[in-house]
Formats: sequence, C-alpha cells, structure tokens
Amino acid sequence: MQDINRDTLIATAHAVADVARVETLAYFRGAGLNIENKADGGFDPVTVADRAAERAMRAELARRRPEDAVLGEEMGPTAGTSGLTWVLDPIDGTRAYLSGTPTWGVLIAASDADGPRFGIIDQPWTGERFVGGLGEARLDSPHGSRPLATRAPRPLSEAILFTTFPEVGTEAEGRAFHALSAQTRLTRYGMDCYAYALLALGQIDLVVEAGLQPYDIHAPIAVIEAAGGIVTNWRGGPAHAGGRVVAAANETVLAAALAILSKAED
Amino acid sequence: MQDINRDTLIATAHAVADVARVETLAYFRGAGLNIENKADGGFDPVTVADRAAERAMRAELARRRPEDAVLGEEMGPTAGTSGLTWVLDPIDGTRAYLSGTPTWGVLIAASDADGPRFGIIDQPWTGERFVGGLGEARLDSPHGSRPLATRAPRPLSEAILFTTFPEVGTEAEGRAFHALSAQTRLTRYGMDCYAYALLALGQIDLVVEAGLQPYDIHAPIAVIEAAGGIVTNWRGGPAHAGGRVVAAANETVLAAALAILSKAED
Repeated sequence: MQDINRDTLIATAHAVADVARVETLAYFRGAGLNIENKADGGFDPVTVADRAAERAMRAELARRRPEDAVLGEEMGPTAGTSGLTWVLDPIDGTRAYLSGTPTWGVLIAASDADGPRFGIIDQPWTGERFVGGLGEARLDSPHGSRPLATRAPRPLSEAILFTTFPEVGTEAEGRAFHALSAQTRLTRYGMDCYAYALLALGQIDLVVEAGLQPYDIHAPIAVIEAAGGIVTNWRGGPAHAGGRVVAAANETVLAAALAILSKAED
Repeated sequence: MQDINRDTLIATAHAVADVARVETLAYFRGAGLNIENKADGGFDPVTVADRAAERAMRAELARRRPEDAVLGEEMGPTAGTSGLTWVLDPIDGTRAYLSGTPTWGVLIAASDADGPRFGIIDQPWTGERFVGGLGEARLDSPHGSRPLATRAPRPLSEAILFTTFPEVGTEAEGRAFHALSAQTRLTRYGMDCYAYALLALGQIDLVVEAGLQPYDIHAPIAVIEAAGGIVTNWRGGPAHAGGRVVAAANETVLAAALAILSKAED
C-alpha cells in the first residue's frame, strides 16, 4: 500500500461517505410513507437504501480508484490490482434504520492484507463522522471537531459494555456475554456500529458481538485502533475476519473481558 | 387553563427547552475528561448536568410564569396558583447520557388536572425537538420541520416494539412484556424517551415500560396524543401517574397489546 498517496486515499474515503450520506438519508424516516404505499409490491426501504448507497459508493470508487478491490455488504467482492480493498457496509444497523433511530451508520474501510488501514463510521442524520487511521483519529460533527481517544483503564465493575441484541449470537455466545455483562457496571443494547464510535470517543469501555461479517468490523477496527483501543476476536486473535469480536478501550479491560469470553464453547 | 394564553405557553415551553439544551450539552461527552479528573471527589457528570438543567429551567419558568406549579425530577414539586403544572425531566435516559448516545432527552410538559396539554421531547445533541399539543404536532430539526403522525394499524406480527431495558420492571412485568414481544416483528432496546418520539414520528408501533414516574411520561403523552397515538397504563386507564405504561400508534395495536399486558399480575 506504500505507493498509494495518503491524501488521495483519505479524500476518496470522505467522498464515498458523502455519497452514501445522500442516498441513505433519501430513504430514512420519510420512507415510512412509501412503505405503506408500496406494501403490496413488497417494497423494503432498507434494501432499497442499502443498494442505492452501495451503488453510489462503488461508482465513486470506480471513478477515483479503479485499481482497488471492493468488498460490499450488498454486492459482494470485486477484484482489484492495487492490493487495497475498500470494505463497505452502506447501512450497518438496518433495524435501527428501519425504526428511525440515529444510531445506524455507514462503514467504509481501506484495508490491505494486514487488515484495515483507514476507516470511517459515518452517521448521516446526526452529521457525525468518526475517522481513524493514517495518523488521523477525529470526530467531525455539526458541534465541531474533536480528537478520538479511548478511556483509561478501570476495573470491570466500573466498565460500560455495549452490544446490539440481548440475544447475542448462539446460546454458548449468549452465556459468555451475560457472564461478562454481570461483572460490569452497565450494559446497554441497540447501538450497532455506533457503539464502536462511542468506544473510540472515550465514552464506553467494551463492545462485544458475535456473528459479524468482515464489512461490519473493518471500519470500526481502524477507528478504534487509531483512538488507542484494541479489537480482537474472543480468543485475543485478529478480528478482521468477523465472527466473535470484542472491542476494548485498553489492554487492561480487554484482558479482563477475554478471561471470561475465551471460555465460550464453539 | 382556558385563561392562559396559548402562544405564551408554547413560547415558554420552547424557552425552557432552550436553556436545558445549553446546560445538558455543557456536560455531554466532554464531561468524560472531568470524570477522570474528579473521580476522587465523587463527581457525577449526569447528576451535575441534571441539576444544572433543572435549575435553569425553573429560573426560566419563575421569570415567565411565576404563578404556575412545577414538578421536576431533581427538585420535586413547587406549588402554584394557576392550575397549570410544568412537569420537567431535565435528562430522561441518564444511562444513555452517560454513555454518549444521542437518545436521551429533555422532557417538558404543561399539565392541568386532566393531564398533559402540551409537551416537548427535546434531543439537544441532534437538535431534534418533538412538539405536541394545543394544535401542534411537529418535529423541528436541522433537517427541517415535518408534521408528526403515528402509523396506520397493522397486525402485531408486523409491529415494531421498543422498551428501554430487556429486564423490564418486576418479574411479572418482564413476563408480560416478553409475551408481547414474542408476537411482534421486531423488539428494540435502549432508547428511553426517544422511543416515544419515534412513535409520534410514525416509525414504530408500540412502546411499553414499567416503573415510570409522572415526569417520565407527561411530555410523551402530549406529543403522542397530538400525533394521533394513545398512551394508557397496562389496563387501558390513564397513564399520567406513571407506573406501567403502553404507548401505541393507534387503537388497533393498543388493543392487541393490552390483551397481553393486562394479564400481568400486580
């Protein structure tokens, strides 16, 4: 990846986030009316928005970086020649999107064989863009810009843990999650990728999920690592293939979480 | 309440929401640094923000409407002579506030003996203000204004249900909630008052909670009823005293929910 200009890569990621913002907002909430109108035709606003956003993101990449590979949630993998892959999830948190909560996100990562190098978690409705990698770690929002930095270590009994569903993964995964949850100060649900953004922002200590796809986790890895956090699988190994993932604010809270999560049966 | 000028009341409610916005944002997220610094002194940013906001809201009311009563989450009841009571929750969703999610809210209601007449659910970070009562039913946000209107009836199997915690209330309350949840298309957690706002916006069908205080529900009642929805207790009676509450987009989905919830033991 050394021959790819850093500024070009960052500018491309922002341009891709910008087009996704337009497409996802076009169907967010307002689409409620369309659901009623088109129910007979099986119209699904999430699917429509997901596809429209990924199409627009891919068109932007084809124009700016035709030599790169693309892996998208909706349209799968497209080969490239540069060694760089854009890993895209146009709407992470489709249930949140469907319900109107501003906690879904657009995920964009630029990854090479070693994993994510640069990532964006974008929330189009709030206008928050969490950026990390290649020397950047920043939240831009209508309230201004601020650096991203994860929290200092604290005991598990003081930690805030997030996950998306209380029914985390398989039965074995759920047991391990709830064993961890019982040790923490506070467990919260329902945030999808927004939870990773809050971890990078220094608001929470742990995010634990299971059954993830690579496109769910590449951008969060880049943003969290740039902010000083760590993302691994439940055995402490690399997380960029997805599956069982733990994101932690620091090594101390990661070790405490892994001591419990690593006991989960396969 | 007929001798109170409608426009004065609405202007007062907005002024109260405006000062709460300033105080709550002053400690939101940025307060993370202060928590570390002041941990020894037991500094709790949520408590500080909650009190600062209620103080500012009460000062605004004392200046504009000294004859009205006030019931606030932090400072309790203050008597008045007008028959109108301002029911205030400066931060509904303190756990969300603490975690940095933009789904807590400032709740303001103007209520008389019959219940809430006008209400505001304000989300200071997103800049969304859900307003209902006295002929208004509107969301104002940085994305513009739109009317609030709840969803048309649909079968329970198509409905979206929200609540704050998966461990809803007592054991009996939890059982009733999960019996209802099992019949719906989708159950989501962790939204506090934002769930009521989404119901008024026509995004979701039901919000079910237990153990509420009056200041948790007065503003949501005003906003949801103005948008065409209904809020009752789990037996179909008035909800403004708090306790077990169900908010519904329409009579049909309310009846379906009550058929299950009304069986909850005391």
